[in-house]
Amino acid sequence: MQTLFSRKVGPKALPWVLKSLKDYQTTSPTPILGPDLPDIWKPPALYRPLFGTDLLDQPVATVIDGKSIAEEIRSGISDEVRRMKDTIGMVPGLAVVLVGQRKDSQAYVRNKIKACQEVGITSIMAEFPQDCAENEVLCAISKFNGDPSVHGILVQLPLPQHMDEEKVLNTVNLEKDVDGFHPLNMGNLAMRGRDPLFIPCTPKGCIELLLRSGVEIMGKRAAVIGRSNIVGIPTSLLLQRHHATVSIIHAFTRNPEEITREADIVISAVGVANLVRGYWLKPGAVVIDVGTNPIEDLSSEHGYRLIGDVCYEEALQVASAITPVPGGVGPMTIAMLLSNTLDSAKRAYRFS
Amino acid sequence: MQTLFSRKVGPKALPWVLKSLKDYQTTSPTPILGPDLPDIWKPPALYRPLFGTDLLDQPVATVIDGKSIAEEIRSGISDEVRRMKDTIGMVPGLAVVLVGQRKDSQAYVRNKIKACQEVGITSIMAEFPQDCAENEVLCAISKFNGDPSVHGILVQLPLPQHMDEEKVLNTVNLEKDVDGFHPLNMGNLAMRGRDPLFIPCTPKGCIELLLRSGVEIMGKRAAVIGRSNIVGIPTSLLLQRHHATVSIIHAFTRNPEEITREADIVISAVGVANLVRGYWLKPGAVVIDVGTNPIEDLSSEHGYRLIGDVCYEEALQVASAITPVPGGVGPMTIAMLLSNTLDSAKRAYRFS
Repeated sequence: MQTLFSRKVGPKALPWVLKSLKDYQTTSPTPILGPDLPDIWKPPALYRPLFGTDLLDQPVATVIDGKSIAEEIRSGISDEVRRMKDTIGMVPGLAVVLVGQRKDSQAYVRNKIKACQEVGITSIMAEFPQDCAENEVLCAISKFNGDPSVHGILVQLPLPQHMDEEKVLNTVNLEKDVDGFHPLNMGNLAMRGRDPLFIPCTPKGCIELLLRSGVEIMGKRAAVIGRSNIVGIPTSLLLQRHHATVSIIHAFTRNPEEITREADIVISAVGVANLVRGYWLKPGAVVIDVGTNPIEDLSSEHGYRLIGDVCYEEALQVASAITPVPGGVGPMTIAMLLSNTLDSAKRAYRFS
Repeated sequence: MQTLFSRKVGPKALPWVLKSLKDYQTTSPTPILGPDLPDIWKPPALYRPLFGTDLLDQPVATVIDGKSIAEEIRSGISDEVRRMKDTIGMVPGLAVVLVGQRKDSQAYVRNKIKACQEVGITSIMAEFPQDCAENEVLCAISKFNGDPSVHGILVQLPLPQHMDEEKVLNTVNLEKDVDGFHPLNMGNLAMRGRDPLFIPCTPKGCIELLLRSGVEIMGKRAAVIGRSNIVGIPTSLLLQRHHATVSIIHAFTRNPEEITREADIVISAVGVANLVRGYWLKPGAVVIDVGTNPIEDLSSEHGYRLIGDVCYEEALQVASAITPVPGGVGPMTIAMLLSNTLDSAKRAYRFS
């Protein structure tokens, strides 16, 4: 058969060959792990009419109320923490490591600690100045690793430039890595038949939003826009485990709007305001918007407000359901952190 | 804005909600890691004409000669092994663990050992009967872990049913995991900015075939058909690191042919003969066929021959390039095993 149909030739003869056989080496010129390139997204073009017309009068999408779903989950966690306390006299504990004085990081940490208090999880905070030595942070993490009352350790990112983020994160005991950022967790998330100890909070929150809103994932096409280690990649792996057909879109994708328009479920985690326009969406798609991008708003108290990656007003008229920003994925991320901390404590105390 | 456009309602009011709010629990009814379901592919329909017509007269695809590319690579490895021996008096060593008498496994192992010999890599084999205790295998692996002359340990899969594959594979020292199957390797392959110690051999072979044939990957759409831990998933992660836009197709994908037809690069690793038909392919696509499926062939010596996942005769008329089966990916897998073993020895001896 082969001789009948094929012209069997070496790569030298391929018409689309860019490199000649002389370049053949044990290692190829392009590194096998792929070139390390930054994802630089072009900001979206200014207003482009939806389907060639102006905005419709009526929105069609239902808003997925992440805040109220997260509250339900937190209420369930609160019940479980109380039951644990009543039964074995123990409560889960979360340690938070914060380096530097970034306003946004401080606000995130404050929210997390407040959320812990509300459900009865003990929280301990270790704060360091911006210019502290990496070793001080590593020591604090090691101390938390050995503290049996601490079941989760969270290192607030980003760390200052002079610290090795990978090294710091790898110091966190795997059993306490409630952020789920350890590569071993990621590998076990990627591999079928393996289970990670923790699922990263934001991806877990996105999938919970879908599951708890009754969105069927299995067999659906999903587009994940953005491929960060903390959101895009683990979200795509988790969607895959739910048997969606997943496409991952990034800054090198030539026609992101076409691929996104094929998707029944769109999860965007890029960090570019209004990147995903209404015409990017398939009518009836479910949209989960992870982006939280500050834009100037002089009428607001702080002079800015947060908007998502998805052009909300346009999407409301095309999608069947969408998460708002704020009030969508954000509250879920914190709820999932609490959930991971509870799960970790249950595991430590063999409490079920 | 939000009040103008959105009807903010809880999930109770969503029209497409399948579960009511009463079902809300700390953990949702669908397991968050996704239901564990087997991938069962329907065998392809019998002959369907290509583009509604009969087969064309002339093939248009160039055949990517994996055998000759692999030979080039092995020749480079051979040179490196000799240079290592001449410089530091050491050579790389590979240990192979084989359990049971499966004919195919025995053949694979034989090929690997022969390939080692040809490039000057020392090989040691540990063979066990089908009914041996798991502990015997674990002991052998531990011995190889501690042996400084062994730089790679390969456990031939599948293992007998009574053994815990995960446990056995996890026993292999990470620094000697030349198959790259350890979840930590997989996590580091998935995460940007991290590098795995080893890239799994078959995915690495597929990408090398593309790179060494001058196929540009960056910005291209790629479809990976099949999502096994050893081929599909790591291949998709590696394509992604090369900045392709990757879609992963599996048995739950509703329209695999449509998605495949959008792809510039198609890599199939399913194990279903002739699953991918000519009409599944975009004209000009590059096709890498990882499948090796035995089909009855009374005219051949053993009564069967191997064919790929891709209907070769049809694909030849649509694709711009395709790997044959046999002689495509197969030889590359072995070459990559040798390459990983050499890399491991170089690391161990700090030889560059």
